[in-house]
Amino acid sequence: MPHRAPGALSKGPANHLSGRPIRYYRPRGSADVRQLIEDGFQAFNAARLGEACRVFSDKMLLPEHDTTIGLTVAGALTPAGLGGCMVELMERGLVDFLISTGANLYHDLHYALNFTLHRGSPFVDDVELYEDGVIRIYDVLFPATVLLETDAYIREFLVRWGVSAPVSTAELHYALGRDLLEQKPGCEEYSVVAAAAEYGVPIYTSSPGDSSIGMNVAFHELMNDSSLMVDPSKDVNEICAFILAGKKNGCVILGGGSPKNFYLQGQPTLWEVYGIPKGGNDYFIQFTTDSVVWGGLSGATPAEAVSWGKVNPGVLPDTVVAYCDSTIAFPLFCEYVVGSQHGRRRRKALMHQRDECVLALKREARVTHAAGTVVAPVEAGPDGTSGGKQHR
Amino acid sequence: MPHRAPGALSKGPANHLSGRPIRYYRPRGSADVRQLIEDGFQAFNAARLGEACRVFSDKMLLPEHDTTIGLTVAGALTPAGLGGCMVELMERGLVDFLISTGANLYHDLHYALNFTLHRGSPFVDDVELYEDGVIRIYDVLFPATVLLETDAYIREFLVRWGVSAPVSTAELHYALGRDLLEQKPGCEEYSVVAAAAEYGVPIYTSSPGDSSIGMNVAFHELMNDSSLMVDPSKDVNEICAFILAGKKNGCVILGGGSPKNFYLQGQPTLWEVYGIPKGGNDYFIQFTTDSVVWGGLSGATPAEAVSWGKVNPGVLPDTVVAYCDSTIAFPLFCEYVVGSQHGRRRRKALMHQRDECVLALKREARVTHAAGTVVAPVEAGPDGTSGGKQHR
Amino acid sequence: MPHRAPGALSKGPANHLSGRPIRYYRPRGSADVRQLIEDGFQAFNAARLGEACRVFSDKMLLPEHDTTIGLTVAGALTPAGLGGCMVELMERGLVDFLISTGANLYHDLHYALNFTLHRGSPFVDDVELYEDGVIRIYDVLFPATVLLETDAYIREFLVRWGVSAPVSTAELHYALGRDLLEQKPGCEEYSVVAAAAEYGVPIYTSSPGDSSIGMNVAFHELMNDSSLMVDPSKDVNEICAFILAGKKNGCVILGGGSPKNFYLQGQPTLWEVYGIPKGGNDYFIQFTTDSVVWGGLSGATPAEAVSWGKVNPGVLPDTVVAYCDSTIAFPLFCEYVVGSQHGRRRRKALMHQRDECVLALKREARVTHAAGTVVAPVEAGPDGTSGGKQHR
Amino acid sequence: MPHRAPGALSKGPANHLSGRPIRYYRPRGSADVRQLIEDGFQAFNAARLGEACRVFSDKMLLPEHDTTIGLTVAGALTPAGLGGCMVELMERGLVDFLISTGANLYHDLHYALNFTLHRGSPFVDDVELYEDGVIRIYDVLFPATVLLETDAYIREFLVRWGVSAPVSTAELHYALGRDLLEQKPGCEEYSVVAAAAEYGVPIYTSSPGDSSIGMNVAFHELMNDSSLMVDPSKDVNEICAFILAGKKNGCVILGGGSPKNFYLQGQPTLWEVYGIPKGGNDYFIQFTTDSVVWGGLSGATPAEAVSWGKVNPGVLPDTVVAYCDSTIAFPLFCEYVVGSQHGRRRRKALMHQRDECVLALKREARVTHAAGTVVAPVEAGPDGTSGGKQHR
Repeated sequence: MPHRAPGALSKGPANHLSGRPIRYYRPRGSADVRQLIEDGFQAFNAARLGEACRVFSDKMLLPEHDTTIGLTVAGALTPAGLGGCMVELMERGLVDFLISTGANLYHDLHYALNFTLHRGSPFVDDVELYEDGVIRIYDVLFPATVLLETDAYIREFLVRWGVSAPVSTAELHYALGRDLLEQKPGCEEYSVVAAAAEYGVPIYTSSPGDSSIGMNVAFHELMNDSSLMVDPSKDVNEICAFILAGKKNGCVILGGGSPKNFYLQGQPTLWEVYGIPKGGNDYFIQFTTDSVVWGGLSGATPAEAVSWGKVNPGVLPDTVVAYCDSTIAFPLFCEYVVGSQHGRRRRKALMHQRDECVLALKREARVTHAAGTVVAPVEAGPDGTSGGKQHR
Repeated sequence: MPHRAPGALSKGPANHLSGRPIRYYRPRGSADVRQLIEDGFQAFNAARLGEACRVFSDKMLLPEHDTTIGLTVAGALTPAGLGGCMVELMERGLVDFLISTGANLYHDLHYALNFTLHRGSPFVDDVELYEDGVIRIYDVLFPATVLLETDAYIREFLVRWGVSAPVSTAELHYALGRDLLEQKPGCEEYSVVAAAAEYGVPIYTSSPGDSSIGMNVAFHELMNDSSLMVDPSKDVNEICAFILAGKKNGCVILGGGSPKNFYLQGQPTLWEVYGIPKGGNDYFIQFTTDSVVWGGLSGATPAEAVSWGKVNPGVLPDTVVAYCDSTIAFPLFCEYVVGSQHGRRRRKALMHQRDECVLALKREARVTHAAGTVVAPVEAGPDGTSGGKQHR
Repeated sequence: MPHRAPGALSKGPANHLSGRPIRYYRPRGSADVRQLIEDGFQAFNAARLGEACRVFSDKMLLPEHDTTIGLTVAGALTPAGLGGCMVELMERGLVDFLISTGANLYHDLHYALNFTLHRGSPFVDDVELYEDGVIRIYDVLFPATVLLETDAYIREFLVRWGVSAPVSTAELHYALGRDLLEQKPGCEEYSVVAAAAEYGVPIYTSSPGDSSIGMNVAFHELMNDSSLMVDPSKDVNEICAFILAGKKNGCVILGGGSPKNFYLQGQPTLWEVYGIPKGGNDYFIQFTTDSVVWGGLSGATPAEAVSWGKVNPGVLPDTVVAYCDSTIAFPLFCEYVVGSQHGRRRRKALMHQRDECVLALKREARVTHAAGTVVAPVEAGPDGTSGGKQHR
Repeated sequence: MPHRAPGALSKGPANHLSGRPIRYYRPRGSADVRQLIEDGFQAFNAARLGEACRVFSDKMLLPEHDTTIGLTVAGALTPAGLGGCMVELMERGLVDFLISTGANLYHDLHYALNFTLHRGSPFVDDVELYEDGVIRIYDVLFPATVLLETDAYIREFLVRWGVSAPVSTAELHYALGRDLLEQKPGCEEYSVVAAAAEYGVPIYTSSPGDSSIGMNVAFHELMNDSSLMVDPSKDVNEICAFILAGKKNGCVILGGGSPKNFYLQGQPTLWEVYGIPKGGNDYFIQFTTDSVVWGGLSGATPAEAVSWGKVNPGVLPDTVVAYCDSTIAFPLFCEYVVGSQHGRRRRKALMHQRDECVLALKREARVTHAAGTVVAPVEAGPDGTSGGKQHR
């Protein structure tokens, strides 16, 4: 069995795909769930989850704070059906921009295109799946044809779009979302990418080549001689500009990984690179199962982030890390938030304010650089920390 | 304390920086360590670590296999001093290309530029560190000036380099490495980026905007009106092309995260997007503390990867996941490998074969597409899995 | 600060104890929570949690199965206020016996005795807490006097009880519960130990010396020259006897640890030691954050348990491990279960059937031993696995 | 397949048992390993492992400290072949008493009795193993007959020993060790239980019924009408007495679980129950993969233990938790320690000082109680924390 022969999915994969279809669940603001969280979640991670709900509902959403809220998404959340929670938050104006792994956006397209992913088991024979042409994401199962047809859609969209220049990922995803809205009217109800386009929520991805979307963009460049390309610098500058423009800034981090880091580096970019003294995050909520003791950068705690200027040192009480699988924590969090007093805000529609924000960033950076407040490279000082020959 | 005022590092951070300097440790092939692994590591993760050593030494390095070996790097490994292990493997021809988080490459520059990072404790007061201008990566401590001066070096290099066009990350890192070799002769002994340039090992990063290198490239674009940009599609195509050219393919994955995914998507890109029936990985070694039960895509096991065609179904015995902090596992692994029979190979110097390999990929993709073997988007079939209106 | 001077709790700990009091939350069978679990928990651990709910409600509680259900409890669950879930399950006849760490039973006494534990933060200064006489269990805080007075109550109870002979832990906890019911009428509403006594649910502890209850029993023996002692053999035989008597057997395992192992060894004891061919568990539900890859015995999966005869090989579909903090998973599980069709059963009151069951065990063991079906120690066979001199 | 028919192991399990036999590895004090730890383990858990080595070698073993050292053992370490490390430490006088799960002692008997456990894989079919009569502990495999014959040996020993009274687990394990030394001369080289008896190191188990040793003691009571029983109170008092007698106290904790808790409750028992103001631990070393964020009591950090008086607040710098699988960390630690300056001490042989130590404990407790320094149960104070009616 030297390789998968694409398209040669001879045997019926039907038996692996008998589980219930996965549907995007939309949170409804249940009072029962709210009460369980308030009265039954009293200690350990249950209490942290409750704190996260309250920090978001009672502080981040407070109208006078006008917090600019980023949501970062890692882990296979759209395959698990959690895209509905994201759609609900965007529709209600409760998140202002997204940073996601490419995979979550790619798999969201399956829903938009009306393909079906199925509930399944993680304890299946992968060699058998391989032979039957069934793809597995932990316990989510679907035919390999879903990949092939979604890929074909992306390549057709790229041709249809016709842009042949560098773009930010927000532009790419926005164009994709507009195309989906056109091809599949109504799909903003069950597609994150389409809903984001509808509501003007920019979606970034920190690793643009690292998903089937990026793979098809690469195909487009190599085989169609297109000059369409993602320019990550645009993403860096747009996110920095949003943070600079925010009255207060806060985030909800699902998982961690490079989306988390991409968001959190916004503040250090401002002071470290642009020389602009904007403070760190005011609010910080994370749901993760990583553990700081294993030392991954993406597992860094709000406390460690303080030393980098990523989190305002005065706000540690408004930072919460709840250690729980996002598939459990995020729907509970959304039920609480959606049912809370400020559970709907005017949408910021940052998608349409990118140029203006970046111009403001450039203007302010010009001022600080002209004023010479940026640290220039210095010669080795007596403490030996400023370069020199002391190494080895 | 509204924000960090860059450069205003008034109070002496000296007391936090009294720990031993971190130096790049170079593995030596100790026979004692080998014996401990063979005879003392008999079960559980110790046994997996031993298996990883044997799969690499006895199979991947076997001359007749001529395995193309990728090393992916996530987690703060250069700050922890593990860059010396990578330098040793590259110098000996034991890894052919790297995919790393940007952070590991950025922090490697500190070593190249002779700044000093210190051993410390994770139990320190971050607000105090912040006030003293000391940066913390878990238990690694160094002055914030190290960041500022490394950033200034990067911006100067970008001006010096003068390229104003899209490049792959391999080109960017190679140019950076050549510059380091020129500015700090001999630094290939204690810099991964410099050593890679010296030995022709291409280094990719899956999230090019997600590190201080990317942040300074973004500054260069915005403030210097440069058209230098990273084109992730080039990275995707170069890695695909290496895998296609490989007689056998194998990987060593440190941590996981987007570097892992970026490497592993090479095979699916070939069959799913380019329609080229190249099989999956022949060898797969991972050191991680992630757990598959938490479901992160980057935590996917070799078994799950089989269903995606990322790992050859016949080679599961040659796949090993050892659950252990890389800071412990990787030096042990390198001691074993360096001291093994085939502990030195002719270097492939893939850095200088990128264009040729990508051309071969393009040629082969043209053939399969002309032959019509790629799956075209199909209409909804009776099983409802090929799109349609059945959603909701 | 050489030691804690007992009783010398000078400074007011008031400021650490300003958090909301922790109350035992009683699940109510919310339809909203049920719907969230059914429709929103579709993949990964959310799906496993849903499966656990359905295995318990639809199979274990099916009247014709008459499953004997053990609940094992590890982790600080009563301090976290989860005792109310256990009380609810016992009152409804949904669990038939408990195996708990001693700590959970000891801390339950605080509730019975009307002391107050407070919600708090895990990020507090422990040296300050120590000086202020405040005890911390992760984020649960209470005065050290609560320990001292609970201890004094236990020692008084032991004197009042007057038993001076070996007992099983079930007898000890039952007597303690009866005493509580007498001293604090109505406390069965907010005490696991009291409720268990009221409803005839025996509570075992696998490590009888390993808690403040055991510490005070040890004091009683040393200082009062009592012959009261826990005889662990009685516990082993009583649990074996319950399992032997069960029509079907199933368990809900919170955490893992020695309570889990103590329960699961019941089946091996029957076949391996007593020579009685009773099969393994029919149902197995576990909520844990342990991971099998770290190899703890208490982290063993249902699959591994099959090789030991602890789990019936045919029933793996009825085994579920959901990886989630019990403080989140258990209340959700109980809401679902309490609201399900068979959410109330006739209580088995096994506390009062212990002697009868143990006699039946003894009788059946006599029969198998008389029949000579137990394996006698054999001489070394040719495969060298039956003892001999081949070692080293 | 309703149950395992004991003894009916028809099909040859040979194919599962082809892996290398597991042998007890004895650390040798390798200078190479020491250097790797000193120079290569610079940050994250590698650094913690190095710190643990130095705290043990340079502080705990310092002759003038005369530290009483407890080793607690959880996780399947003897099956993994790590018993050799324990034997080496006992022989050199480097640990003074052990607290272990019963399972580790039970499986140690297989080595003493010359049965063979094999290296294997965790990825095997458990139903097949079950049918073939092969037992699996993660990746350690052996015939089910090994269990049956080890059990038979235990039951014969219990008859041979003839004691019919309450004993501490130290007495039980000592008698077992003496019997092994007699039955299998020389086995102290490859049996923890035998070596402990030889060197006078008492071994305790926190959950005496929770292993096959306890299961056979239970059989002995039920079927042979013996009055032999483990009295956990004796264990509690003996360990308290050792700690009270220690000039300095320190521990090495492998894993966590109830053995850890059993050791650490020694200090609280002294002040909380006996009213003796002996301070907490002076040194604390733990190798674990648990994470404090999941909140298990056994995952409590040294910091949290301070609030309980389990760890001296002044000594937090001498407490180290290294997050690593014991199968990797413990052999490395032992290589370092065995090769260190004070790598051999006069053995304390505490096994033979138990009565004397317990008498001293009783004497001192009498004094404090006579002096009335123990806190008596007090009436509810105005802060509502001392009992009363405020609950609900």
